[in-house]
Amino acid sequence: MIYSFRDDYTEGCHPEILAALSETNLVQQTPYGEDDYTAKAKSLICEKIGAPGTPVHFVASGTMANLLMIAAVLKPFEAAVSVAGGHIAAHETGAIERAGHKVIEVESSDGKMRPEMITAAVHENTMPPHMARPRLVYISNATETGLAYSKAELTALYDTCESLDLLLMIDGARLGAAMASGHSDLTWPDLAALTHMFWIGGTKVGGLFGEAIVFNRAELAQDFPFHIKQRGAMISKGRALGLQFCALFENDLYMSAARAANAKAAELSAAIETAGFSLNDPTQTNQLFPILPNDLIERLEQDFAFHRWGPVDEENSAVRLVTSWATEPAQIKRFIGLL
Amino acid sequence: MIYSFRDDYTEGCHPEILAALSETNLVQQTPYGEDDYTAKAKSLICEKIGAPGTPVHFVASGTMANLLMIAAVLKPFEAAVSVAGGHIAAHETGAIERAGHKVIEVESSDGKMRPEMITAAVHENTMPPHMARPRLVYISNATETGLAYSKAELTALYDTCESLDLLLMIDGARLGAAMASGHSDLTWPDLAALTHMFWIGGTKVGGLFGEAIVFNRAELAQDFPFHIKQRGAMISKGRALGLQFCALFENDLYMSAARAANAKAAELSAAIETAGFSLNDPTQTNQLFPILPNDLIERLEQDFAFHRWGPVDEENSAVRLVTSWATEPAQIKRFIGLL
Amino acid sequence: MIYSFRDDYTEGCHPEILAALSETNLVQQTPYGEDDYTAKAKSLICEKIGAPGTPVHFVASGTMANLLMIAAVLKPFEAAVSVAGGHIAAHETGAIERAGHKVIEVESSDGKMRPEMITAAVHENTMPPHMARPRLVYISNATETGLAYSKAELTALYDTCESLDLLLMIDGARLGAAMASGHSDLTWPDLAALTHMFWIGGTKVGGLFGEAIVFNRAELAQDFPFHIKQRGAMISKGRALGLQFCALFENDLYMSAARAANAKAAELSAAIETAGFSLNDPTQTNQLFPILPNDLIERLEQDFAFHRWGPVDEENSAVRLVTSWATEPAQIKRFIGLL
Amino acid sequence: MIYSFRDDYTEGCHPEILAALSETNLVQQTPYGEDDYTAKAKSLICEKIGAPGTPVHFVASGTMANLLMIAAVLKPFEAAVSVAGGHIAAHETGAIERAGHKVIEVESSDGKMRPEMITAAVHENTMPPHMARPRLVYISNATETGLAYSKAELTALYDTCESLDLLLMIDGARLGAAMASGHSDLTWPDLAALTHMFWIGGTKVGGLFGEAIVFNRAELAQDFPFHIKQRGAMISKGRALGLQFCALFENDLYMSAARAANAKAAELSAAIETAGFSLNDPTQTNQLFPILPNDLIERLEQDFAFHRWGPVDEENSAVRLVTSWATEPAQIKRFIGLL
Repeated sequence: MIYSFRDDYTEGCHPEILAALSETNLVQQTPYGEDDYTAKAKSLICEKIGAPGTPVHFVASGTMANLLMIAAVLKPFEAAVSVAGGHIAAHETGAIERAGHKVIEVESSDGKMRPEMITAAVHENTMPPHMARPRLVYISNATETGLAYSKAELTALYDTCESLDLLLMIDGARLGAAMASGHSDLTWPDLAALTHMFWIGGTKVGGLFGEAIVFNRAELAQDFPFHIKQRGAMISKGRALGLQFCALFENDLYMSAARAANAKAAELSAAIETAGFSLNDPTQTNQLFPILPNDLIERLEQDFAFHRWGPVDEENSAVRLVTSWATEPAQIKRFIGLL
Repeated sequence: MIYSFRDDYTEGCHPEILAALSETNLVQQTPYGEDDYTAKAKSLICEKIGAPGTPVHFVASGTMANLLMIAAVLKPFEAAVSVAGGHIAAHETGAIERAGHKVIEVESSDGKMRPEMITAAVHENTMPPHMARPRLVYISNATETGLAYSKAELTALYDTCESLDLLLMIDGARLGAAMASGHSDLTWPDLAALTHMFWIGGTKVGGLFGEAIVFNRAELAQDFPFHIKQRGAMISKGRALGLQFCALFENDLYMSAARAANAKAAELSAAIETAGFSLNDPTQTNQLFPILPNDLIERLEQDFAFHRWGPVDEENSAVRLVTSWATEPAQIKRFIGLL
Repeated sequence: MIYSFRDDYTEGCHPEILAALSETNLVQQTPYGEDDYTAKAKSLICEKIGAPGTPVHFVASGTMANLLMIAAVLKPFEAAVSVAGGHIAAHETGAIERAGHKVIEVESSDGKMRPEMITAAVHENTMPPHMARPRLVYISNATETGLAYSKAELTALYDTCESLDLLLMIDGARLGAAMASGHSDLTWPDLAALTHMFWIGGTKVGGLFGEAIVFNRAELAQDFPFHIKQRGAMISKGRALGLQFCALFENDLYMSAARAANAKAAELSAAIETAGFSLNDPTQTNQLFPILPNDLIERLEQDFAFHRWGPVDEENSAVRLVTSWATEPAQIKRFIGLL
Repeated sequence: MIYSFRDDYTEGCHPEILAALSETNLVQQTPYGEDDYTAKAKSLICEKIGAPGTPVHFVASGTMANLLMIAAVLKPFEAAVSVAGGHIAAHETGAIERAGHKVIEVESSDGKMRPEMITAAVHENTMPPHMARPRLVYISNATETGLAYSKAELTALYDTCESLDLLLMIDGARLGAAMASGHSDLTWPDLAALTHMFWIGGTKVGGLFGEAIVFNRAELAQDFPFHIKQRGAMISKGRALGLQFCALFENDLYMSAARAANAKAAELSAAIETAGFSLNDPTQTNQLFPILPNDLIERLEQDFAFHRWGPVDEENSAVRLVTSWATEPAQIKRFIGLL
C-alpha cells in the first residue's frame, strides 16, 4: 500500500475535532454563524492575538478567504501585489481577477516578499488613472515553499505598506506551521499588530474544513457578512465552523498539532541530510524539498506518494514531502529506511 | 428551555453521517473531490435518477450551488426567471446579480412557477440587444412555502422551457421533503428527464453541509471544476462532501429522513387543524404555516422558537414551523398540548 | 419619403455644435479629458447649477453614465431601486447587474417614483445579510413617458432618501426636455440641492454623443477617472465631449434647443387633441403618446416613422411621437394635415 | 508656443472626416448602428480584408474594444496572454481583470510576442482546475514602441495559437501605422487569415473617436451587440462611428493618412541620426525613440512637448516623439533645427 506524504489534507480531521462534533451534534443552535460555538471561537482567537473585539469570520476554504477579503477591501480599480508564485497569483484559477482585481506579480527568488519589491511594484504601477492602483500586499506565512517570516521581516513589510498607504494581508493556510516554527520569532499578537488582516488556516492543521478571517482594522470588516452571503460562503450550519475553531484554540491544539507536524518534517529532513542528500529549500515548517536521484525517486514512489517539484539536473530532482498531525511515525521510519 | 421549530438546520448532522465521518476519518484520500467517497456518491446519485454518467458535483451551500450553476451556464447578458419570492430573487443578497446576471421576477400567488408566467416574462423581455435575454427558469422544489410540484406541473414547465429555448433548473434545498411528499407523484428519474439541471440539498435533510449539483445535460457541466475552484467553492478535503452523500444515498437515508420530517409536520399540522385553527398554505412537506391568535403565539413563544410569517388580520398571524430528521416527538406533543 | 418622429436622435448634431467642432479642429489639446474645452464645460455646468467646484465628468452614452455612476458609489451587495419600466431596469441589457448590483423594481402606474414606493422597497428588502441592501434610488427626468418631476415631488423623494440613508440619482437622458417643460418648476440649482448625483443628457438635446455626470457630493466622485478608464469609457480625444458641452451651455443652447423641441411636441399634441383624439399620457416634454385608430395609424405610417406603443382597445392604439431640435416644422404641418 | 509631438491624438479629426460629418448631419438615420453609413463602413472593411460577410462592429475607444472582445470570447476562468508592457497589461487600469479575466504577462525584450513565449505561458499555467486557462494571445500591431509585425512573424504566432487551441487577437490602435510601414510585408487579407479577431484603430489615424472590431471567425461575434449594449458602449447616434470609417476606407484615407504620419516620423528619425544621435528602438512606424543628451532635452522642451521615455545613462535619456496626419511639416523643420 502506498502511503501519502503528498500534502497535509489527506486525512479527515483531528480526533479532538471529531469528538467535539460528536458531543454537540444534537444541541440546537442558531444558524448562519450566530451560534454559541462561533461566538466562543471568535473570543478564543481574539484572546490568542491579544486583541479583544477584533472582527473574526469563518469560511470553508482558503481561496474563499482570499477572494472574500481582497474583494471586500479593494475598490474595483485597486490591485493586489503578490510574489509570482503566490497562491492567489498561481493556484486559484484567477479567483481574484474574477472578482475584478488585478494581481501584480513580483519576482522573488525564495518566494518571500521584501520591501523593495513592494516599492518597485508601486513605482511601476502609478500612472493615474491609466493603471490599476496597488493597494494591498498579499503574502503567505508559511510561504509556498515552507519558509516562515521573522518578526523583523514582517515589521519591514508592514512599515513599507503603512508608508505607501497599502494594506498588508497574510494568507495563513499554513499559519500554524509558521507560528510553530523554530525558525521564526513571530508571535500571535505580532500578527495583529503587523498586518491589517490575515486568516488562520484550519484545514491543514487538522480541521475538516474552515479558515478564520481576522480583521485587525475593524473598519475593513464593515458589512462583511453581506460579502460572505453574497459569494455563497455562508453555510447554514455555521456551528460546524465555529466548533472546529473552539477545539483548535481551547487547549492550544492549533499550536500543538502544528508543532507535531513540524517535528516530523524536521525528523525526515535531518534523516535525508544524514543520508547524504541536500535540500532545495531549508526546512522550516512542515514541508521539505529534498533533492534526490531520479532512480531513488522512482523506487520511493513504489511505496509513497509525494509531489515531484522539478528537475535539478539530469540525474536529480527536487520532491516535496508534507507532514501533518496525522503523519504516522512508522511511515517516516519506513521512508528513511529506503534512503 | 425553548425548543426550536425555526428551521431544519438547527442541529448538527444525522447520526449515520456522523458515523461515516468517524469510521473513515484516518483513511488517506486524494483531495479536491478526487477521492473514493465522492466517486461513489456520484455513482449512487446517478443510479437514483436512472442516468448513469450524469455529471455530479458537490459544494458546501445552496447559494453557492445556485450561483455556480447559473453563472456557469449563462452568457453575461442572459437572465434567469424566478418567482418574486424565490430564494435567488429574495434571500441570497443579490448573489446572481453579483455574478453578473439579471433575475427577472414574476408574481405568483402561491409561489409556484407556471408556464404562462414564463411565456409572459420572455415576451416582456425581448428587444435585442436592449434587454437582457431570458435563458433560464429557476424554481424551488419544495417551494419557499413548502409546496411540492407534481409531475404534470413539472412537465408543463419543462415543455414550455424547451419550446422557448430556456433551461429549467430546480433549487433542491428541500428536495427531499418534496420527493417524500405524499402530495406529489414526481420520481427521481423525472428530475433527470424534466429539468436541465438541479441540485439535491444535503444540509436540510441531515447533512452537516453539502449540496449535490446534477447536470442532466452533460454539455452544461463542461469545465465546471474551474468554476468551483475560481469561486472559492472547492474544499481541499472534498471527501467530507462525498462521504455525506454516500451516507445519504447508500441505504436511502435521504428519503427515509425526509419522510420522517414530513410525517412530523403532518402530525403537527393535523393536530393544529383538529384544535380548530386553519393553515395559510396546505402542508405538503416539512414546513407548516398555521394561522394562530396573537396571544396564543406569544404564549407558545415562551416555550418554542419559530418564525412569525406575517399578520393575517388584527388578531391572528401566520407562523412558520419546520420539522426535520432531528425533531423530537416529545416536543411535538408538548407543542400540541399548548394549543 | 418617410419622415421620422421615432426618436430625438435621428439626425447628427446641432449646427452650433458642428461649428464648434470645425472651428477648433486643428487646435492641439491635451488628451483624456484634460483639455481646455472640458475644463470650460465643467465650469459652465457648475455655474448653471450654482455650485462651483462640483465634480463633473463626461462620457459617451447614457447607459455608460448609469452603470459608471451606480457601480462607483455602491458596495457590491448594495442595490438600486427603480420603477419597473425605468431605463436601467428595462432597456440596458442588465448593465447594472453585469456590474454586480441588483435593481429592485417597484410598480408605478405613471412611471414616476414616489416616497411610499421607496419606503416599501426598503422595508421589503431588509434582512441583513440575506438581502441585497437598497442604497440608491434611480429616477429619470423626464420619465420614460415624458413626464417632468416638480420641485415638490423631487423634494419629497430627496427627503425620503436622506431619512433612509439612500442616494438619489437622476438619469437625465432627456433632462433638457424636463427642465424646459412648462409643467415643472424645477430649477438647475434644485438639481444640485435635491439629488446626490445626476447626469445631463447631451445626445438627445443636440449633441453628437455625450452626457455630463454631476456629483453633488464630492466624495461620491472620488477616483472616478479610474472607473471611467477601467470601464472603457475614456476616449482619448476627450475634447470632443468637452467642446460639445461648451457649445450647449455657453449661450444656453441646452435650454433653447430643449424648449424648441418641447414647443413642437406641444403643437403636435394640441393639434391631435383638436382633431378629436385623446392622449395616453399628458404631453409635458418632447414626447407625446396619442391614441389613434388603427387604420389611421397605418395611413400615417406610409409617410411617417414612429413607435407603436401598444393597443388601447380593439380599434385604437397608442403611438409615440418624439420631437427634437431638428424636427422640421413643415413635417409637423404635414402630419397634422393627415389627421 | 509649445508644439506637441506627445501623441497622435492631439488634434481633432482629419478634415475629410469632418467634411463627411458636416455633409450628412441633417440626414435622418436609424440609431444604434443600424444606419446606412455603418452598413457601408462594414462593407468597405470586409472588402479591404478580402472577406465578405465578416462581422464588424464599431466602438468609441480602444480599451472598450479590448475589453469587449476579450470578455465576449473568454469563459470566466480563461486568461489572456500578453507581453508585460502590452496595453491591456499595463495601461488599461485592469479593465480585463475588472471583466473577470487574468492577464498572463510574459517578458519580451523588444515588446514583440514570440511563439516560444506563448508555449511557455501555456506550459506554466496548466494545472486544471487550479490555474486560469490560457485561451487568448493578445498582441498590438504596431507594438507599444512602434514595431510592425512581419507576415512571417504573424504566421508563426498564428500557427502556435492554432496548435494550442488559442485565439490570436490584434490590438490595432496603431494598425494604420503598422500596415503602412515599409518594414512589414503584412497585407490586410493577412489580418483576416492570420488572426481570429482584431480591431482597426480609427482615433489615432485621424478619427474623432472610433475603432472597428473585426471577427474573422463569425462564431466569436455571436450576440456581440448584447455585449456592446450591456457594457455601455452602444451610442445612440451610431452613424457617427460608421460615417468616420466610411470616410477612412472609401478612398483609402486610412492608409494614406498612416503613410503620411510614418513619412514624417522617418524624416524626423533620419534627421536625428544625421545629427549624430542614436535611437532606442528602430523607427518603423509613426513613433520614434531618440536618445538625446539631457540638456538638449531640456532645451527642446521649451518649444516642444513630448514624452520622456526613461534615462539611458547619466547624461542621456530616451524620449518619445509621435507624428500623425496633423503633424505640421514646419514644426518638424523647427525641431530638426534645434538639434
